[in-house]
Amino acid sequence: MAAVENLDQYAARIERAKAELAKQGLDYLFVGPGSDLFYLTGYDAHLSERLNLLIIGRDGLTAMVVPVLEAPLYAGRESLAPTHTWEETESPAALVASIVGDATGKSIGVANTLWSSFLLRLQKTVAGANWDSGNEVMRTLRMRKDASEIEALAEVARLTDAAFIDFIETAQIAGLTESQAAKKLGESMEKQGLAWKGGIAASGPNSASPHHHTGDRVIQRGDAVVFDWGSTYKGYHSDITRTVVIGEPSEEYRKVYDIVRRANQAALDAAKPGVACEDVDKAARDLITAEGYGEYFIHRVGHGLGLDVHEEPYMVGGNKLALEPGMVFSDEPGIYIPGKFGIRIEDIVYCTEDGSKRFNEATRDIVVMD
Amino acid sequence: MAAVENLDQYAARIERAKAELAKQGLDYLFVGPGSDLFYLTGYDAHLSERLNLLIIGRDGLTAMVVPVLEAPLYAGRESLAPTHTWEETESPAALVASIVGDATGKSIGVANTLWSSFLLRLQKTVAGANWDSGNEVMRTLRMRKDASEIEALAEVARLTDAAFIDFIETAQIAGLTESQAAKKLGESMEKQGLAWKGGIAASGPNSASPHHHTGDRVIQRGDAVVFDWGSTYKGYHSDITRTVVIGEPSEEYRKVYDIVRRANQAALDAAKPGVACEDVDKAARDLITAEGYGEYFIHRVGHGLGLDVHEEPYMVGGNKLALEPGMVFSDEPGIYIPGKFGIRIEDIVYCTEDGSKRFNEATRDIVVMD
Repeated sequence: MAAVENLDQYAARIERAKAELAKQGLDYLFVGPGSDLFYLTGYDAHLSERLNLLIIGRDGLTAMVVPVLEAPLYAGRESLAPTHTWEETESPAALVASIVGDATGKSIGVANTLWSSFLLRLQKTVAGANWDSGNEVMRTLRMRKDASEIEALAEVARLTDAAFIDFIETAQIAGLTESQAAKKLGESMEKQGLAWKGGIAASGPNSASPHHHTGDRVIQRGDAVVFDWGSTYKGYHSDITRTVVIGEPSEEYRKVYDIVRRANQAALDAAKPGVACEDVDKAARDLITAEGYGEYFIHRVGHGLGLDVHEEPYMVGGNKLALEPGMVFSDEPGIYIPGKFGIRIEDIVYCTEDGSKRFNEATRDIVVMD
Repeated sequence: MAAVENLDQYAARIERAKAELAKQGLDYLFVGPGSDLFYLTGYDAHLSERLNLLIIGRDGLTAMVVPVLEAPLYAGRESLAPTHTWEETESPAALVASIVGDATGKSIGVANTLWSSFLLRLQKTVAGANWDSGNEVMRTLRMRKDASEIEALAEVARLTDAAFIDFIETAQIAGLTESQAAKKLGESMEKQGLAWKGGIAASGPNSASPHHHTGDRVIQRGDAVVFDWGSTYKGYHSDITRTVVIGEPSEEYRKVYDIVRRANQAALDAAKPGVACEDVDKAARDLITAEGYGEYFIHRVGHGLGLDVHEEPYMVGGNKLALEPGMVFSDEPGIYIPGKFGIRIEDIVYCTEDGSKRFNEATRDIVVMD
């Protein structure tokens, strides 16, 4: 078993979690498998019907509940939270209850992605507790990226940009299906050493569906094709969207493309410390609305990104959270005209001391492909 | 938009869900993204911070709550459950509450994999309801596979078997890392037309960790190497484990291998309609215990399999559920001797009218590789 790296960093994060629990009046934080657990311990736990659960108490308790057969995967991290294994015929919920002790009147925050099957059982077994979201604790810890996180995010964005440039310089996609075109993009990603995990390739009328499932439609001349994809580097995500056109674009395409590009710039220009997330969204939305396409911009302008491809903070109407230096998020306005075409341009940006900068610098000019 | 296939089949499944709700005294079933939703509607919803939720009421109500930008992905299924979209700045929990109406005293069953972030919000917004697991409803529907499901499971097992035979006939793995060996197995899977999604390759002492994360250890002469992997075909999973040895096996390896193989057979022989799941586990466990290795068999003997790689029914001590024809599950005893080696043999089997049969028929003899 190799020594576990960065134990000190994880220990510091757990201390910050305890401080946040105290600040928010929560007694415990329960964290199941996923990015929150990875952020706090580096443990990449199996997501399955067997409970893995990190327990952090604001008064100092830490415990890691692990299925006995997965205990070797957690080995080396006991200094962060001692291992409490459960055998196949034991109840992990009862084990959690025994660790917490009398929970009457205690407040337990639950990190986002724990399955309901576990929460419902814990709500019955850890009796008398008040259950709340643990999101406020976790987002407070995770939203502002530190230097090593910024470095990983910059690098994965740079490599993803390079893959796009390689793709548009080498691939011919007219006549291919969306799936085949996506595969070509995947090959360009792999040339950069990034794993290909699939992505959106939405062509022609499909491009007007922002979360289209890449399929068997054959790409034709005149099509807009939205590519939205990413990968990971040291656990951190890239996420970029570029829209290309097959052959000479129409006037309408040029016009809409230009609006989306200016909306992308407007959101970037608006994003600086102290600005509410909703105002980043509003900057792009106001521009698109003024141009007459407001009804076709049907999603928020962006989402945070880090260990998850979608995480806090969200750039969306109603979110009054103020931006702070180190926050990283997407800037991805889009216009989707049903039955015709959609255009989206997405960069990952980060908030600096006095503004925001893009990680992605792959061309935002109109790209014509064959 | 292509016509949605199998709408009648999904409609029939939703009717069965309503009948189960009535039988179990639940008023509503809430189903988030995942295999339960796919089973009931064929909708492969995005798993994200945006709520997708199928609501089924025992009195006839059905509703599909969908983020507006993902509505095109659900299109064509409205006859199963009408679409209720929510805009980015709206509260999906409030939408759910408005669909359900007065929930005071109503019982809501929640399917397993809905994230806690959603459940906690719904528990506050859909006020006055009693919250329970929806697992009993969903497992009742899904455990007994129909003919088309059995066919898909048989086919994906057959192809996976063929990949293993190809792998042991063509690959040399001594000197490779676990990751490199797994990649070779992946190539054999792809030759059969199956996607490679990674799997366990655990060598030497690592083979004693049942859920080992495939890594950089170099495979050496004398090693046991546990391969545990699978893929999907028409959405249905394969899952198989074979243990190979590099060069001539030791006497101890031969002895333990033979015990594991006989335990695998004992579980198969025990599995027939009316037998409790725990007794399938016990058949393998008793044999291993009688041979003196009981303490090294640290997991249940099997799990159900279908649209999920782990699902009900579980072959585990304490599970008194009686087997029925059409149930499909793994038979995977293992012996794990810390610091030395582990051996596991896993087949997928299905319960017939009068016994059980294997889907997997790749050799269970000792396999020696270079």
